[in-house]
Amino acid sequence: MKQTGAAVAGTDTRTRIREAATALFRREGYAATGLKRIAADSGAPFGSIYHFFPGGKQQLAEDAVRTSGPEYMRLVIGVLESVPDPLESLENAFEVAARDLEASGYADACPIATLALEVASSNEALRLATAEVFDQWVETGADWFAGWTGDRDVALWLSRSMIMILEGAFVLSRATRDPEPLRAAGRSMVELARGALVGRSTSASRSSREEH
Amino acid sequence: MKQTGAAVAGTDTRTRIREAATALFRREGYAATGLKRIAADSGAPFGSIYHFFPGGKQQLAEDAVRTSGPEYMRLVIGVLESVPDPLESLENAFEVAARDLEASGYADACPIATLALEVASSNEALRLATAEVFDQWVETGADWFAGWTGDRDVALWLSRSMIMILEGAFVLSRATRDPEPLRAAGRSMVELARGALVGRSTSASRSSREEH
Repeated sequence: MKQTGAAVAGTDTRTRIREAATALFRREGYAATGLKRIAADSGAPFGSIYHFFPGGKQQLAEDAVRTSGPEYMRLVIGVLESVPDPLESLENAFEVAARDLEASGYADACPIATLALEVASSNEALRLATAEVFDQWVETGADWFAGWTGDRDVALWLSRSMIMILEGAFVLSRATRDPEPLRAAGRSMVELARGALVGRSTSASRSSREEH
Repeated sequence: MKQTGAAVAGTDTRTRIREAATALFRREGYAATGLKRIAADSGAPFGSIYHFFPGGKQQLAEDAVRTSGPEYMRLVIGVLESVPDPLESLENAFEVAARDLEASGYADACPIATLALEVASSNEALRLATAEVFDQWVETGADWFAGWTGDRDVALWLSRSMIMILEGAFVLSRATRDPEPLRAAGRSMVELARGALVGRSTSASRSSREEH
C-alpha cells in the first residue's frame, strides 16, 4: 500500500489512477469501467494510465484486485478484533458492514465480487487473481476463528461461511437498498459460531464430523 | 418456459434472443454483453432484436431478470421438495448446485447476481427488477421453510440466509473453480436449520428472540 522511492509526484498520480480504477471496478464492475472514466475520476492525463499501467485495464484490474483484496480483509479483521467476545464481535462486524454500506448509498460493498463474477468464465488471469484473494480471505478469517474454536477445520468452515454469507448479503443489500440482509447474515453467523462453541463443549457426537 | 400461441416462428426467434441474452447476462454480466453477440448466439438477424425488444439491451435485461429469476426459484424449490427430510433436503440442494455448477464448467450459477451487482449503483430500473426478484425469492423460500419451522419470522430468516450463502458460495465456487464452497454452504444451512428446529422444540429462551 505504501509507496516508496523518489518520484513522489509520479507515485501520487499512479496511486490516484489505481484508486479511481478500484472504486469503479468495485461499484460498477470491470466491463462498465473505461479508461477515459478512470482518467477523469483520477484527474490524471489519459496518457499517464499507460505510462504507469502498460497493460491497460487488464493490468489495472489485476492490481486493484491484488491490492484492495488484502486491504479489505485487514479492515474486516480489524473490526472483528475490536470486540473481545467472538459472538458479539461477529454481530458487530455485520452491523458495521450494514452501516458502512448504507453510508455509501449502497455503493461500496465487496471490492472484488462484481469483477469476480464478470470474469469467472471469460478472463483467466483476472479469475485467478480473484481466486487467490478469496483463498487468502478464507485462511486469514480462519486464523481469527481458530483463536477461539481451537479446531482448524471448524475455523476454516466458519471463515468460509462468513465470507460467503457476507458476499451474498452484499448482493441482496445493494439490490434492495436495505441493510437488513446484512443484519440477518450477522445473526446467522452468530448462530453458526454459537453452535460450533456448544458442539465443542457439550456434544462430542455433534462436533465429531468437524473434528476429523 | 414453454411457449404457447399461434405465432410459432415469431415466438421462437423472440425466445432464442431472450435465452441467448439471459445466458450471456448470467455468465458475463450486463456491460460485457453486446447486442451483436446476442444476435450471433441466438442465430437471429440483428434487426430482429429491436423488432422484439424495442428497448434494446435494457429491455432484454429487464425481461431476462424478470423471467429467469422466478424460473430459477421454481427450480430451487423443486429440488428442495424432492427430499422429504428438511435437513437432508438442504444438504442435497447445495450438493445439486455444486454438481450443476461443476457440470457447466463453473459458468452457470445465479442468473441475476452478476447483473445485480453491476447495476446496483448505476441503473435504477434494472436494480429494481433485481430487488423484486430477490424479495420474491425470500418469500418463496420462506414458504418452504415455514412448512416445517412453523414460525414465519424464523422461516424468513432461514430463507434469506439460504439465498445469501448460496449467492456467496457461487461467487467463491466460480472464482476458485471448486465445488467445496457450495458444500460448505450446504453444511452451514443444515446447521442453521437444525438449530432452528432444536431451538423450537427444546429451548424457549433460545428461540424467544425469533418468536416475536
